Amino acid sequence: MAKDRINNFNAGPAALPLPVLEEIQESFLNFKDTGMSITEISHRSAPFDAVIDDAAARAKRLLDLDDDYNVLFVQGGASLQFAMIPMNLLRAGETADYVNTGTWSTKAIKEAEIQGVKYNVAASSEDRNFCYIPKEFSFTPNAAYVHITSNNTIKGTQWAGYPDTKGVPLIADMSSDILCRKMDLKPFGLIYAGAQKNIGPAGVCMVIIRKEMLDRVPKTIPTMLRYTTYSEKNSMYNTPPCFAVYTVQLVLKWLEETVGGLLEMEKINREKAATLYDLFDNTEFYSGTADKESRSLMNVTFRLPNEDLEKKFVAHALENGFGGLKGHRSVGGCRASIYNATTKKAVAELVDFMKTFEKRNG
Amino acid sequence: MAKDRINNFNAGPAALPLPVLEEIQESFLNFKDTGMSITEISHRSAPFDAVIDDAAARAKRLLDLDDDYNVLFVQGGASLQFAMIPMNLLRAGETADYVNTGTWSTKAIKEAEIQGVKYNVAASSEDRNFCYIPKEFSFTPNAAYVHITSNNTIKGTQWAGYPDTKGVPLIADMSSDILCRKMDLKPFGLIYAGAQKNIGPAGVCMVIIRKEMLDRVPKTIPTMLRYTTYSEKNSMYNTPPCFAVYTVQLVLKWLEETVGGLLEMEKINREKAATLYDLFDNTEFYSGTADKESRSLMNVTFRLPNEDLEKKFVAHALENGFGGLKGHRSVGGCRASIYNATTKKAVAELVDFMKTFEKRNG
Repeated sequence: MAKDRINNFNAGPAALPLPVLEEIQESFLNFKDTGMSITEISHRSAPFDAVIDDAAARAKRLLDLDDDYNVLFVQGGASLQFAMIPMNLLRAGETADYVNTGTWSTKAIKEAEIQGVKYNVAASSEDRNFCYIPKEFSFTPNAAYVHITSNNTIKGTQWAGYPDTKGVPLIADMSSDILCRKMDLKPFGLIYAGAQKNIGPAGVCMVIIRKEMLDRVPKTIPTMLRYTTYSEKNSMYNTPPCFAVYTVQLVLKWLEETVGGLLEMEKINREKAATLYDLFDNTEFYSGTADKESRSLMNVTFRLPNEDLEKKFVAHALENGFGGLKGHRSVGGCRASIYNATTKKAVAELVDFMKTFEKRNG
Repeated sequence: MAKDRINNFNAGPAALPLPVLEEIQESFLNFKDTGMSITEISHRSAPFDAVIDDAAARAKRLLDLDDDYNVLFVQGGASLQFAMIPMNLLRAGETADYVNTGTWSTKAIKEAEIQGVKYNVAASSEDRNFCYIPKEFSFTPNAAYVHITSNNTIKGTQWAGYPDTKGVPLIADMSSDILCRKMDLKPFGLIYAGAQKNIGPAGVCMVIIRKEMLDRVPKTIPTMLRYTTYSEKNSMYNTPPCFAVYTVQLVLKWLEETVGGLLEMEKINREKAATLYDLFDNTEFYSGTADKESRSLMNVTFRLPNEDLEKKFVAHALENGFGGLKGHRSVGGCRASIYNATTKKAVAELVDFMKTFEKRNG
């Protein structure tokens, strides 16, 4: 391992598994004996077909989804999905339901609003600054879909389970928690995730769509904005972001073969999160910002007694090799993002550092 | 240099400068002493600001464009630009002019058609299977813009100069020839280029827009599809494709500092192209498919006496370390793409191989 690397708690782009980075580095001038870099090979070639097909197959296997679902690789991030979802999936006269749990949900709702479609905010936790996941919903009967943000990177909350929508397809922005735990995803009509938190580098968004949802896609929207275009062309109507897809493939391979699958990953993630939350529950120096039952396994948000101490904490942490602990610019405070690639060792070392910092400054 | 690398004549994704690949490889686990990979650093950080700002500044310097222009980094490839251009730049009642010089122009026109806007095909070379660049145009007075494809990757043609549009802003898809030669780009309102041919890996499209064009952008289109979003947020409204932007930065740095700028690059490109076209002009075994005065500096398309020989040629070439010589699946034949990163040495070796192949099979 490169000794000069830091413990990276960035919220996204975020830490990637070191073995994945090392494999990319090792093969960077000659990918699979092609005599070319992965950045130089044709996307219309057998070696790249193997990459994209393997990435999709592993995603479905890990998430326990069958051939009712297609895995698509789309550019533009989750933010483009906010627009593509109502554009593709709402039929004339239908209503879309949204649950508002923070910044990203609010942005998703704004894109529905821009398009002038009918939507209903079925629940919101804005009353307490989004520090919890709502439990009561006013769903629209026969809504086209119910959109949720499964994990809220900025507010540090996560859905522990998913709401019963009485058969209406769920849609989730899982950018910051996809593949962090074992869940039944069958109620979902569409799942999407910008790769740069849990599954890869920035530059590709994984979209998993139940095939029957594709019947809704109108032909009157631009080709590159139709889910059917990606579905019919194996995400290669035009040149896909090859390097990003390749990295996703390697991360999913690592998750299956090195970590050992989602149950193992979930166990590790729960242990990592517990060591931090236990610290909060046993001191008044660090206080978590999310309600206990809504706490995220991925983004641990917390405050120190005052802003000066928070500044000092972030700076000292960085000096000691812990990066990315500043809270999102919109909320302040501190945040440790502990995605799949963040090791138990890194979290344990952070907790040790935090205890020492408390002793010296508490 | 890695001895196991081939001479790469891929049409895109295509060869990248070896020093650029080596620098990426070298720093891949620790970018600029951050202790993180370029794929792991935050886009909201000083090191990434330096990358994206430097990439934009170099592009403007190389293309001799001043502060009237903004450089944007957009995902979705040139294919998404086909849709974004009419969506952003056409006002109610206005007409868009298009010149049709092949597959990519046709696709650009199709996206205008899907949106139901008024458009006019001001010229087309379809009558002779797009083997030339038209010289006569029926432009619409006061059109919103005139769209051209500056180089036609599939047909091997390239505009030698640009048409006089009487003040109507030109828009060009320069995906396959941006930065290949010195040209006056002041008549252009917008230039765009998917990176994966001349300036980087797949996954980012560079869009250079004259600022006054931004006044046309309506607020009723989705946030991620508005040029103003990218312009106002330095292409970071959401997470940009960091790795792709970084690679573009390194390629532009190589072009400025190692090659020595566009005049030098153009000289090299003209020499490379001439060695291949001279071969065609001195044998009947290889025949170029483009009209002489429309020949591309970037994509040299040619035929052999019959398809069996073409197949044999492509296979033997690959065995001898020359990759990517098969013509586009839609037209057949052969094609050597000789973008900026393809060396004079690689082209000279290819010509030698071609002469030997002719001797043995002619």
